[in-house]
Amino acid sequence: MNTPLARSLWIPIAVALALTGGCSEVASSGGDGSITDLMKARNLSEADVSAALKTYTPTGRHDEYITFASGGHGGNLIVIGVPSMRILKYVGVFTPEPWQGYGYGDQTDSLMVQGMRDGRQIKWGDMHHPALSETNAEYDGKYIFVNDKANPRVAVIDLRDFITTQIVSTELIECDHGATMVTPNTEYVIESSQYPAPLGGRYAPIEKWNEEYRGAVIFWKFDRDKGKIVPDQSFAIELPPYMQDLADAGRLDSDGWVFINSFNTERAYGGNLEGKDPLEKGASQNDMDYLHMIDWRKAEKVVAAGKTKTIVGMRVIALDTAIAEGLLYFVPEPKSPHGIDVTPDGKEMVVGGKLDTHCTVYNFAMMKKLIDAKEFASKDPYGVPILDFKKSIRGQCEIGLGPLHTQFDNQGFAYTSVFIDTQIAKWSLADLKVVDKIDVHYNVGHLVTAEGDTASPDGKYLIAMNKWSIDRFNKVGPLLPQNFQLIDLNGSKMQLLYDMPLPLGEPHYAQMIKADKLNPIEMYTPIGTNPLTHAKDPAATTADTARIERKDDGVHVYMSAIRSHFKPDIIRVKEGDRVHLHITNVEQAFDATHGFCINSHNVNLSLEPGKHCNVTFVADRPGVFPYYCTEFCSALHLEMAGYLLVEPK
Amino acid sequence: MNTPLARSLWIPIAVALALTGGCSEVASSGGDGSITDLMKARNLSEADVSAALKTYTPTGRHDEYITFASGGHGGNLIVIGVPSMRILKYVGVFTPEPWQGYGYGDQTDSLMVQGMRDGRQIKWGDMHHPALSETNAEYDGKYIFVNDKANPRVAVIDLRDFITTQIVSTELIECDHGATMVTPNTEYVIESSQYPAPLGGRYAPIEKWNEEYRGAVIFWKFDRDKGKIVPDQSFAIELPPYMQDLADAGRLDSDGWVFINSFNTERAYGGNLEGKDPLEKGASQNDMDYLHMIDWRKAEKVVAAGKTKTIVGMRVIALDTAIAEGLLYFVPEPKSPHGIDVTPDGKEMVVGGKLDTHCTVYNFAMMKKLIDAKEFASKDPYGVPILDFKKSIRGQCEIGLGPLHTQFDNQGFAYTSVFIDTQIAKWSLADLKVVDKIDVHYNVGHLVTAEGDTASPDGKYLIAMNKWSIDRFNKVGPLLPQNFQLIDLNGSKMQLLYDMPLPLGEPHYAQMIKADKLNPIEMYTPIGTNPLTHAKDPAATTADTARIERKDDGVHVYMSAIRSHFKPDIIRVKEGDRVHLHITNVEQAFDATHGFCINSHNVNLSLEPGKHCNVTFVADRPGVFPYYCTEFCSALHLEMAGYLLVEPK
Repeated sequence: MNTPLARSLWIPIAVALALTGGCSEVASSGGDGSITDLMKARNLSEADVSAALKTYTPTGRHDEYITFASGGHGGNLIVIGVPSMRILKYVGVFTPEPWQGYGYGDQTDSLMVQGMRDGRQIKWGDMHHPALSETNAEYDGKYIFVNDKANPRVAVIDLRDFITTQIVSTELIECDHGATMVTPNTEYVIESSQYPAPLGGRYAPIEKWNEEYRGAVIFWKFDRDKGKIVPDQSFAIELPPYMQDLADAGRLDSDGWVFINSFNTERAYGGNLEGKDPLEKGASQNDMDYLHMIDWRKAEKVVAAGKTKTIVGMRVIALDTAIAEGLLYFVPEPKSPHGIDVTPDGKEMVVGGKLDTHCTVYNFAMMKKLIDAKEFASKDPYGVPILDFKKSIRGQCEIGLGPLHTQFDNQGFAYTSVFIDTQIAKWSLADLKVVDKIDVHYNVGHLVTAEGDTASPDGKYLIAMNKWSIDRFNKVGPLLPQNFQLIDLNGSKMQLLYDMPLPLGEPHYAQMIKADKLNPIEMYTPIGTNPLTHAKDPAATTADTARIERKDDGVHVYMSAIRSHFKPDIIRVKEGDRVHLHITNVEQAFDATHGFCINSHNVNLSLEPGKHCNVTFVADRPGVFPYYCTEFCSALHLEMAGYLLVEPK
Repeated sequence: MNTPLARSLWIPIAVALALTGGCSEVASSGGDGSITDLMKARNLSEADVSAALKTYTPTGRHDEYITFASGGHGGNLIVIGVPSMRILKYVGVFTPEPWQGYGYGDQTDSLMVQGMRDGRQIKWGDMHHPALSETNAEYDGKYIFVNDKANPRVAVIDLRDFITTQIVSTELIECDHGATMVTPNTEYVIESSQYPAPLGGRYAPIEKWNEEYRGAVIFWKFDRDKGKIVPDQSFAIELPPYMQDLADAGRLDSDGWVFINSFNTERAYGGNLEGKDPLEKGASQNDMDYLHMIDWRKAEKVVAAGKTKTIVGMRVIALDTAIAEGLLYFVPEPKSPHGIDVTPDGKEMVVGGKLDTHCTVYNFAMMKKLIDAKEFASKDPYGVPILDFKKSIRGQCEIGLGPLHTQFDNQGFAYTSVFIDTQIAKWSLADLKVVDKIDVHYNVGHLVTAEGDTASPDGKYLIAMNKWSIDRFNKVGPLLPQNFQLIDLNGSKMQLLYDMPLPLGEPHYAQMIKADKLNPIEMYTPIGTNPLTHAKDPAATTADTARIERKDDGVHVYMSAIRSHFKPDIIRVKEGDRVHLHITNVEQAFDATHGFCINSHNVNLSLEPGKHCNVTFVADRPGVFPYYCTEFCSALHLEMAGYLLVEPK
């Protein structure tokens, strides 16, 4: 929006534009040149101008799509507008984040405690694969799930307020990677292991790999009404000690099945200081690894029938049981596969082999027919039936060096990231032929298309999630940003539109949803709502009920916040007192957020309009501790302060 | 950069452009339309097209300026390219950040320990004002300093590698705000208090405010050769218990002086639950507060003469001494001032009064003349001499409602953020008249111009740092991004170019430096360099020297990292062993970063090429713990893993 004054300057230019048929007299309100002048001044090509106009999003205009990208070992979730490629929010998930007051004193601390591993609070995560909740195999915009590969955990983020509301973990496994993916109605959130270990956190010598080490896939039951994963209704399936990799859930024709890649069917485990080959070599010997096919509806029945063992509280279908009950099958896949992606119609699965040059298209009907006929080519060392490769695939598409991941559009095309060639290949699903390639910069990992993981992708935009940026941006030291490159899919040729640096974190995967499917709240109602329950907190406080009460368990401070004061603005306690703060932001204006921090006590809250927070800490040091509003809220923001006075014993 | 294929498609269009004189046939490589078509399709105005072409930065092209913005209570520093307004990096400073491996096991943990308050490690900060190091009152691109308002601390970031290398704190004060600013040759980094408290962390009843509570300004001595603040060579000056606010250092004519605003000269301290007025009301009664003038060169001499008292290890010039020695003076400033900014020539100081409608222009020569003549209008209750207001100012410029901060260009204009009017006002320093105003969105706090805090600002660009965004971006829940609006200063009228959401943190202030003044390293040399010393670490390891040694203090693992393995990839220890990891990334390729994490142990490192890290932890739980590379580094990245085997006792 320009000022009225600036706007009026445009009138003669608009007239000129009309007279010349929409030509070169586009100028700034400062009147400093035509398009050609601007192009010359900034050395822009025609393609640059086109790209600029396809991505530039004027003030107040909203983006058409929202991309949710994992933050990798940054441990948070990244929210990006498309096509402007502006980052709208980093959501704290596995890593405490003080701007959001996430893990800095209030109830989110207890939420992070849920994610403890073996009694230890974990202060970061390695987030890989976000999965939006689905209804009938379409993103519904209600929740998003993410995994922590390093300390295997799954988190739930509520898209009403973009806040993490749950973290679950099981000691069953020690690492995940095929996580998170959801079934088509979000019945389950899938988490499958990567690096095998003895199930349940036990120790066993690594030489007992074949006998004692195992993988597992966990089906976390999601209760949509409560917006929570229910661990008691979740289950797992034991898997051989290969390295299970990415996963995808079937939809439509393949609904009820989950597909998981694997590598290292060689069962190598390194030992490069002990005279053995490094893992990378040992794990790259076989020509084929195994695509895992799992019938999760049948698995549900097996669990319901009680045919499980319980390990560290998790119901587990043993590998032998899974084989005996006919819910686990393997299909060979070309060497060291990485990505697996189910086609929109659910009929086929595309696998990229990172040491192969093809994408392989598996046909579910063909595989199902073999399974139904019990026509197996062989068994793996653990007895898992293996289907015949050629009888399971419709064909292969020659892609290039290092095909990794595949996404889809609404025109029957697939798009595959090609790591070693650093390209995106566009190919026809119908005839398995590449129709276009575009260079990316550099070392593309995942890619994402608009609504690309649903039964009805939109096409339109693709983001190449490049791992290296090298020379693309100004230097900022040895640690470089990743580079998201936005690519226009609307023409017959792919067009590079935008390079976006990732300033924090190493995204692995993303999903892109139509922005209008999201409907976040503007403020918490009723006033005094606790975001972890989305209900009014019993300790919600107004200016009229603000008070300090000494109880058996300490000093309770019921506090209200509104521009430009906290009430009370003086808190008097004795050294050693346990202090319970109950703070409500009673503002009713959108964006009227206050912060609340106490000097030197690791307490910092974000109090959005209507939000209530509870904080407990021990006033263990005598002294004078200012507290103040950390969000610039008004002309008298600096005056929005108070004092915690801790009198010595 | 386009692919060669895409490039060739441009030839006919380029020809057409030449033939028609640079007209409307600019189209994408997909061939989907003219400029007017694109404008229509995306509803872009002529001003939008101009803004798009002034900001769009094609792939591989670098930004002209780099803006360093504070992250507010996010606790990290934000690095932004201008004019593209892309965030290039979040640098971890006060808040641990795992992507950078900052505070997750290695020596940066001990760095954060430096920032302890009263023996407690602080896990976040409220960063307000970054200050680039200066040489002769010009940014030199070597270091940047930042403050933590909440737990008053100052950090040093080395711009060779964009890594925090020091955090200093003193228990003298309990809150800062006029921090950080530097003197013209970075002799000192300035940190002045905001909310008064008994100096040195003592307790005193708040009713003893006038007698026991005090402010202070700390001059942290910076050793440029070592790149470190030297606490032993630093000192402080005691100040009356007003609320000192923003500060700026004199330059050129006013070199040797520091200027600090204040509010709440009423010495109100709230008590709104105890029958008193809230602080915001009590602090807004006086028509004038006091601009503090401090002669820091004279203060240095007073310190050298030993006329200090030592409080919690800090040499402090007592208030009485400061008055007696003639190094502290006050000048009245219109009510509730906020920003103070020294003009490029150092001759004047511009103060915005947030409850006033003017900017007041103080003239240093006029003030100095009064001081030299000992011509004082009065004294404050503590005996500080007060200059006459009218005899200290050259004049005032009528700005609008809520003028806050001022920056400068190279044409003699000042730019002031106007909070309540939500505008930027451009005004002539020569005749104190507003010449242009532009609306911003919304609630602008600080603003920054290119090289705007130096003796020679560039003009060109201005960023309005808006506190609220309300409707500017897609909704992401009740906590909204701030909005940085880029404004073009090149024309006679200011032109709004770009809205940039801040996805994390609440920036307060920023500085914008010419990009070519920065010269960050691409990798650590020699290989095995410890970033905290910028020297080769004694434990640097190569593939040939990788080893495991059991010593008296535990198990030492000397490890190398290179695509695609760690050596060793198996570590065998006993439950209870103290494990010392010494890991060197021996890569020599720019951007060949590896990560290193251990499952469930809160260890995660970022190992850029050539970097060495040391980590110590106790293997207190028996089990099998995978470790792996957290930065996608190669086609066999997933195979870059190993196992920590902890055998039970």
